[in-house]
Amino acid sequence: MAQGKNAFYAQSGGVTAVINASACGVIETARSNRQQIGKVYAGRNGIIGALNEDLIDTSLESKTTITALRHTPAGAFGSCRYKLKSLAESAAEYERLIEVFKAHNIGYFFYNGGGDSADTCLKISQLARTKGYPIQAIHIPKTVDNDLPITDNCPGFGSVAKYVAVSTREASFDVASMAKTSTKVFIVEVMGRHAGWIAAAGGMASDRKTEIPILILFPEIPFERKSFAAAVTRKIKRFGYCSIVVSEGARDTTGRFLADQGLKDAFGHTQLGGVAPVVAGMIRDDLGLKYHWAVADYLQRSARHTIVRISNSPYRWTIGEADLNRVANREKMMPRSFISRNGFGITARCRQYLMPLIAGEDYPPYRQGLPLYARLKNIPVKRKLANTFNL
Amino acid sequence: MAQGKNAFYAQSGGVTAVINASACGVIETARSNRQQIGKVYAGRNGIIGALNEDLIDTSLESKTTITALRHTPAGAFGSCRYKLKSLAESAAEYERLIEVFKAHNIGYFFYNGGGDSADTCLKISQLARTKGYPIQAIHIPKTVDNDLPITDNCPGFGSVAKYVAVSTREASFDVASMAKTSTKVFIVEVMGRHAGWIAAAGGMASDRKTEIPILILFPEIPFERKSFAAAVTRKIKRFGYCSIVVSEGARDTTGRFLADQGLKDAFGHTQLGGVAPVVAGMIRDDLGLKYHWAVADYLQRSARHTIVRISNSPYRWTIGEADLNRVANREKMMPRSFISRNGFGITARCRQYLMPLIAGEDYPPYRQGLPLYARLKNIPVKRKLANTFNL
Repeated sequence: MAQGKNAFYAQSGGVTAVINASACGVIETARSNRQQIGKVYAGRNGIIGALNEDLIDTSLESKTTITALRHTPAGAFGSCRYKLKSLAESAAEYERLIEVFKAHNIGYFFYNGGGDSADTCLKISQLARTKGYPIQAIHIPKTVDNDLPITDNCPGFGSVAKYVAVSTREASFDVASMAKTSTKVFIVEVMGRHAGWIAAAGGMASDRKTEIPILILFPEIPFERKSFAAAVTRKIKRFGYCSIVVSEGARDTTGRFLADQGLKDAFGHTQLGGVAPVVAGMIRDDLGLKYHWAVADYLQRSARHTIVRISNSPYRWTIGEADLNRVANREKMMPRSFISRNGFGITARCRQYLMPLIAGEDYPPYRQGLPLYARLKNIPVKRKLANTFNL
Repeated sequence: MAQGKNAFYAQSGGVTAVINASACGVIETARSNRQQIGKVYAGRNGIIGALNEDLIDTSLESKTTITALRHTPAGAFGSCRYKLKSLAESAAEYERLIEVFKAHNIGYFFYNGGGDSADTCLKISQLARTKGYPIQAIHIPKTVDNDLPITDNCPGFGSVAKYVAVSTREASFDVASMAKTSTKVFIVEVMGRHAGWIAAAGGMASDRKTEIPILILFPEIPFERKSFAAAVTRKIKRFGYCSIVVSEGARDTTGRFLADQGLKDAFGHTQLGGVAPVVAGMIRDDLGLKYHWAVADYLQRSARHTIVRISNSPYRWTIGEADLNRVANREKMMPRSFISRNGFGITARCRQYLMPLIAGEDYPPYRQGLPLYARLKNIPVKRKLANTFNL
């Protein structure tokens, strides 16, 4: 039987609870279409695996293990934070990739990541064409932040949205119980970078049947300390307590992050974190109220135990296509129409958008009380190139 | 049909994911034993409800709602942090309680809380006898910290243990994916006050089938910065990454909490929190490694979505009794035999103890993607006393 060219698959950037489900989809689909796609080689630790010619032969993993990827969080082949330089700055990187792809008869490049990965895909496909070794470069969307343009929503967002909505409801029940004599304000810090999608999911904790006083601090809305304190006071007066969902990317009116650790990651993005204690300090200093704060960090991003992603009628979807240059390096923020007039809540339109993304439950299998996640053998493909590449 | 005396039930201190399950048990059992127990009156916001004669008539709640308490986190009647003074200091408080109980024909006092609540029960039962109005005072154990003596384990601990074990496994998968080029150390701060039980549950994330490098910082083991840094280095060398579970109650060799906000709660206990960023700072300063940190706070305590509490063969249990003076105001720490020799891990014996406590899954019902929790009507009982009580 004739076999198609091999495919290369790599995971990039911060992993999610469902990036392995995308890997599972690529591998299973390739396996059932041998005429089109031969073997799927995965990059060990993302694109670095291609540069180092450190490829994993996924054909050596069992069917059961590949199926189990669907419910296994994080990146089964390893991910990386390594941004390829521009073509002008470092053509060598791109040429090395094409050299490796050529050596292993790779005709398909699947890159599973955010906007940066789309940009890499774009450059690879452009360069490959000019080098006379055409490669079909396909970007598989992945972010927790939901900040990719064009796609209705991004795999990785539904699971974190559900986690934040459920946890905010649960913790709000807790603070409501304690408010009479103790904690009156609960603050939870969530991810999302510059976009407020994940924070918006906190707003879903409250609905008509279960009303909860929630204030959301969106990156899209410049933070004003006075109006914030006034909003908290109003909630406390009416409900006796208040829950605050603060995005790691919340900024003040000068554009400065409320919490800036001063570190930058490999992509040159500021490393965020620690805004919850900053807001807690304001609650203490401005209002003298007792508070508790939590930072969800990796717990939200890797949480598989509350995950959903079941497409339900009337929620329907189809898979579309988008040119890479419409996706690469663009961030999709929350539209103003999704944020309530006072800036601290979500609107009915936002609720409609989020509802199908957190609907349904999809629990993983358990063994002795713990979720049973797949671990691959990750056997390397024999190297074919004599030269190595210095990262 | 003859009716027994009424019962008073109140929730005290930090609530948990399962304190309402205890309430459900009391109310349902009373309802099916009318000859012994008449109505169950709940204190609004704990013992304060009794002092203020603000009693909730639980007989006005539907059967369905009371059943739904079993899976509803936090305190359905409100809890409080209000420690009764000693008999010598404030006999008035205790006399007021007995006055209220007498007015409402209350013969049973159920107090659902930790060691302080057991102490209150003890005092009530002693005073009631001397006042010629005997009351059966029953302490219902409730802590997340698992630090009550005598009982094998404490309702509220199993759910948080499962949450911490699952989340530590998930987040460890995440950091393992990122470690090659980015985050190498993940730190999660958990509750537990002065006892390391909850932190120990983090050790369950790793088992023979799914080995994960985990270091635990127990309150029972004085923290030494140098040996800690060395232990992290060893894990990184061998696995490429490391997860750290730090108890909020971790202390240095002088007995000082690693993170002490300097606040005290109504019971005079130091208010803990914020040790994760302190440990993260050490990782940065001593080892120069990239880290992420999370603070689970109320998320762990209220998390219902991962809860267990199914007693399985070979795990069997019976309900025993203990005199209140053996429980009141005592903390049960982790036995040294449960902690590994180097102080950073759990032993096989600890694992055996914890295993049945996190076994099994018990998911709540969901509606539109969110857990459906009960909210009671909480209708007050008509006051019978002319005088009020100043707290």
